[in-house]
Amino acid sequence: MPHSILKLFFVVFLALPLVSQASELRLLVDMLHENGMVSEEQYGRLLAELEQNQQQSAKEKQEIAEKLELATQPPEVEVTTKGGLRVRTTDGEFETRLRGRLMIDAADYMGKPEMGDGTNIRRARLAWTGRMYKDWGFQLDYDFADGGKLRDSFVSYLGFEDTRLRMGLMEIPFQLQYRSSSSNSQLIERSLLGAFGGDRYIGVMADTKKQHWTAAAGLFGETATRQNPIVDEGWGVGARFTVAPINNEKDRLLHFGIASMYRNVEDVGVIEFSDEPEARVAGNNIVDTGDIDNTKSFTRYGLEWAMIRGRLSAQSEYVLTTVDRNNAENLQFSGWHFQTGFFLTDDSLNYERGDFGSPSPNKRLGDGGIGAWELTLRYSSLDLNDKLIDGGEIQNITYGVNWYPVPMLRFSANYIDVLNVTGGDNHGKEQRIFLVRSQWAF
Amino acid sequence: MPHSILKLFFVVFLALPLVSQASELRLLVDMLHENGMVSEEQYGRLLAELEQNQQQSAKEKQEIAEKLELATQPPEVEVTTKGGLRVRTTDGEFETRLRGRLMIDAADYMGKPEMGDGTNIRRARLAWTGRMYKDWGFQLDYDFADGGKLRDSFVSYLGFEDTRLRMGLMEIPFQLQYRSSSSNSQLIERSLLGAFGGDRYIGVMADTKKQHWTAAAGLFGETATRQNPIVDEGWGVGARFTVAPINNEKDRLLHFGIASMYRNVEDVGVIEFSDEPEARVAGNNIVDTGDIDNTKSFTRYGLEWAMIRGRLSAQSEYVLTTVDRNNAENLQFSGWHFQTGFFLTDDSLNYERGDFGSPSPNKRLGDGGIGAWELTLRYSSLDLNDKLIDGGEIQNITYGVNWYPVPMLRFSANYIDVLNVTGGDNHGKEQRIFLVRSQWAF
Amino acid sequence: MPHSILKLFFVVFLALPLVSQASELRLLVDMLHENGMVSEEQYGRLLAELEQNQQQSAKEKQEIAEKLELATQPPEVEVTTKGGLRVRTTDGEFETRLRGRLMIDAADYMGKPEMGDGTNIRRARLAWTGRMYKDWGFQLDYDFADGGKLRDSFVSYLGFEDTRLRMGLMEIPFQLQYRSSSSNSQLIERSLLGAFGGDRYIGVMADTKKQHWTAAAGLFGETATRQNPIVDEGWGVGARFTVAPINNEKDRLLHFGIASMYRNVEDVGVIEFSDEPEARVAGNNIVDTGDIDNTKSFTRYGLEWAMIRGRLSAQSEYVLTTVDRNNAENLQFSGWHFQTGFFLTDDSLNYERGDFGSPSPNKRLGDGGIGAWELTLRYSSLDLNDKLIDGGEIQNITYGVNWYPVPMLRFSANYIDVLNVTGGDNHGKEQRIFLVRSQWAF
Repeated sequence: MPHSILKLFFVVFLALPLVSQASELRLLVDMLHENGMVSEEQYGRLLAELEQNQQQSAKEKQEIAEKLELATQPPEVEVTTKGGLRVRTTDGEFETRLRGRLMIDAADYMGKPEMGDGTNIRRARLAWTGRMYKDWGFQLDYDFADGGKLRDSFVSYLGFEDTRLRMGLMEIPFQLQYRSSSSNSQLIERSLLGAFGGDRYIGVMADTKKQHWTAAAGLFGETATRQNPIVDEGWGVGARFTVAPINNEKDRLLHFGIASMYRNVEDVGVIEFSDEPEARVAGNNIVDTGDIDNTKSFTRYGLEWAMIRGRLSAQSEYVLTTVDRNNAENLQFSGWHFQTGFFLTDDSLNYERGDFGSPSPNKRLGDGGIGAWELTLRYSSLDLNDKLIDGGEIQNITYGVNWYPVPMLRFSANYIDVLNVTGGDNHGKEQRIFLVRSQWAF
Repeated sequence: MPHSILKLFFVVFLALPLVSQASELRLLVDMLHENGMVSEEQYGRLLAELEQNQQQSAKEKQEIAEKLELATQPPEVEVTTKGGLRVRTTDGEFETRLRGRLMIDAADYMGKPEMGDGTNIRRARLAWTGRMYKDWGFQLDYDFADGGKLRDSFVSYLGFEDTRLRMGLMEIPFQLQYRSSSSNSQLIERSLLGAFGGDRYIGVMADTKKQHWTAAAGLFGETATRQNPIVDEGWGVGARFTVAPINNEKDRLLHFGIASMYRNVEDVGVIEFSDEPEARVAGNNIVDTGDIDNTKSFTRYGLEWAMIRGRLSAQSEYVLTTVDRNNAENLQFSGWHFQTGFFLTDDSLNYERGDFGSPSPNKRLGDGGIGAWELTLRYSSLDLNDKLIDGGEIQNITYGVNWYPVPMLRFSANYIDVLNVTGGDNHGKEQRIFLVRSQWAF
Repeated sequence: MPHSILKLFFVVFLALPLVSQASELRLLVDMLHENGMVSEEQYGRLLAELEQNQQQSAKEKQEIAEKLELATQPPEVEVTTKGGLRVRTTDGEFETRLRGRLMIDAADYMGKPEMGDGTNIRRARLAWTGRMYKDWGFQLDYDFADGGKLRDSFVSYLGFEDTRLRMGLMEIPFQLQYRSSSSNSQLIERSLLGAFGGDRYIGVMADTKKQHWTAAAGLFGETATRQNPIVDEGWGVGARFTVAPINNEKDRLLHFGIASMYRNVEDVGVIEFSDEPEARVAGNNIVDTGDIDNTKSFTRYGLEWAMIRGRLSAQSEYVLTTVDRNNAENLQFSGWHFQTGFFLTDDSLNYERGDFGSPSPNKRLGDGGIGAWELTLRYSSLDLNDKLIDGGEIQNITYGVNWYPVPMLRFSANYIDVLNVTGGDNHGKEQRIFLVRSQWAF
């Protein structure tokens, strides 16, 4: 919009007095009168005429200036669209945005255990987010896929610099791969560490994001829906701290993080950890502890690390989960992954403060480029065996390619190779999955 | 937007003839010619030059005026955002609005019966409403909370002054506390009279709202979803009439209302009345008639009263429900509540025509104020015991505080004290609930 | 918006040099100097004054011209509302639209089989659709009615003229009555051929639409949700080709089409065909094959024809379905319908390329007209009996009237007379239904 430029323009120029241009004529008339070329009576009439026309001229100029000022006033709201829609008042008091996300999956499952090939809308999300009276934020986010469920929906306080307070439904601050949006996951699905993450609860959280570090801590109740009516729901706390000693240029990053969360489920008394292989079309778990009863609480500890150097990126996470039980043995489960990506085109991952954003291709398809192409690789390991719990231990390796023809659009293919399952219902089985996804997100 | 001012501006000023400012020069030239100072030939050249420049000048002014008129034409659509989004055509023919509402609850239940502490997204609503071809309105309203359900969604005719015809899904016109939006409920939840209200059906309704009275009457079928496929759904009629003899100033109100509704459920044959204590987190009823079979129809009668005097407000409602049965005794149930509120800050409740709107704090937080603070209190009584039906009778008292830091935002805390339950499954039990809510709504 | 006109305006006029209007004064001064009326010294001062004022004048004009140019620059986004909302960038790169649809039904079922009278929100849809970086399209469409389900949601490539590539959830290209939006169905519900159509799957489709022909072909997987986790989902292909030898004027059309689709359900092994009578309130099927087991695949063949001549329109479709089974007899089912409509007002059906759009009344109610009124009639026949499968054969005739008071708004009444049911659970039963619908759609 040209309006901010215009405003400056007016401050500088409109203040100029509207000079009457008739001074040369007045000079001539005075001279002719002085030289005796016009009579006194003529001189008088000339001066009167001159005076009247000068007034009329000044008035017309004034009117034009006023109209111009009104015509070039900045609009009170700014409307922009880039896939999504954003409307904000130019005084910064109010803002409203519509954001969306659609992921279309198809998968071919090979090997054992038997899982059904097919297709799936993985996510179909509409989020409405904005700002009220400058200091307050709102969000309502819904996923229409698979029957529908609420996603991060809250009220927030934005009156502090770099720090946000939120109250409502949100993800706990745990795991780099969950802090980054599902749209920006380097491989199609997140790693097997999903067994230990991605929980959304109603709670309060404070979140500070600086260029070289972030911190988040919160207190959480239960999910967004009503649970068993006569059992107290669980509650918990969680915190995550990250540093990015190298984070000055777009394509140079070194990031470390630690996080921990505690969750009390004493009244419910049961917890379960499980995961599908790294695809979400068939819908079967490949490892699963089943119900772990007599559970009082569980605690998770997470370590994370990431780097970007030009086209290359790498990241790794480790999570340890301990389960504290009544009249039963305490348990420990753990998992880790390492993943790396390399852009074939002149592009790089996009680190934001404490998480990864969406890559934006340097040269768009249809604008002299071929978009951004990235090769990716991940090794994941998850162990759900401990003492009497025989949930299974699994390792898999996933190979992938991502194509971002233009920003906000992504096509990905993954080949997931389950190397080994030890223990659990699927002991000794090996599965391979070919998975493709088409996605728009903004 | 400055455009309507501008339009007026133009009507007044642009009509001015674009006066040529050269008349003084012409006068001088004529005088000099008359005085013999310039030759005939020179005079001719001067007049020609004068004429040409006058025409050129007039043309330039005309161009500027035309450009200014175009530049300052009002836009065809007006876009505003204040949390929600509104777009309307300036000719008043079309309008489209997005409205939303999020309520985040947490509750601690004490005493008996046992109910589970926890959290809940109480409402997460998105409504799309608007106007088409000036006389027609549309609305689609959905609540994403707890699995999702349609709320008031209809087509309406707006061609009459102060009267609206609607066809579609809507609430029946019954009870002041249901006619007012859930966002504006003085205590967090509505009173125990919820056992007798808040029904939404598909039907047609006419609704007139004047400053000193309102009237609404409608004919209703069943809910928005398919019911038992071989049973005729119920149907009913309902009407409400209110007067507000005092309603001239913002903070002075006296309001009375009566309402009645009849509902035929002969083919279904079963009806049930029940209510939770005045919180909606655990999800258990505390009084409940269970299925009342052999039901032909039921009829409700409601009386309501409300007042505002400055910071103080009070309101009270009474509802009698009679059940007409085949081959079984007819039944009567009833309930009533009284509630009052007092603003600690210089604010007052916001009465609209026939219902309560959202309080708007006089001094916003962050703008020299602390928002609006209100203390509230309610006594509710509900009797679901009659003849062989032993649903229970309950009284409770609820204490509350509301904080509206800025318009559209609300934080509330309630302490609900169940004084007494007589009869029913929870006979003799006493429950206390501490309930908090965070809410944005626009 | 007047902005495109304005832009032209500027190209033409602003290029004009800002002529100094002082040339006549200079001429006079020169003459007076030449005639010896002013001294050399006076002449010099006059020229200096003239020069300075000319410069000042040119500068002021330049400033006004620049401000005007800025003030009249076209906006970067265009916002329009006509029920729905559309925002697009004026460079054509981005567009975002909100579209909606609400259908409110009520039905009275008479005769046998017994079905329940009642009301229903038949569709309550919100679609978000748009364009990104000119060549890419997105859509997310959700129906909130009856528990909610995803409708056509996809990513598309728009870089070819008249041809669109889509990937995601969409309807297969089969049957004219399904290619036309449910909002534009000439009778309230589609015909009994619904037993053989309206399937939505995830897949890829190419779609070409020309004035005189259209072609569509696609490869499809399964639905948008997860199915049985250990069974491979079905897959299929489909294509449709239409010609419109007469399609030059709005109210003259001749259209023919053929279509076929094949679907492999070998792993699932079961298929079922059924239909309700031509209303969707009670929710019971009147004919139903039940599960046909041992099914390998099924294939459908469709023929369609349509015409418009002024106020009159007619269309007819025939569908044959063959079922290929393992160790069981192959089967054949078929159906057809013929429907016609006649506008009482000076209106006609609205053919788009390969399907029917929404009629737009020539004279709107409230604008000198009574909207558009149409009488409609349809005969449908469906045979689900073959060999051991006794699904039932049904014929019905439906009489209707449509009223479109303004565009985007529709009120319809249908009387559905089931003439005959042969075989199946409802053998010999005759049903009549009175069905009304109120609808807005944009």
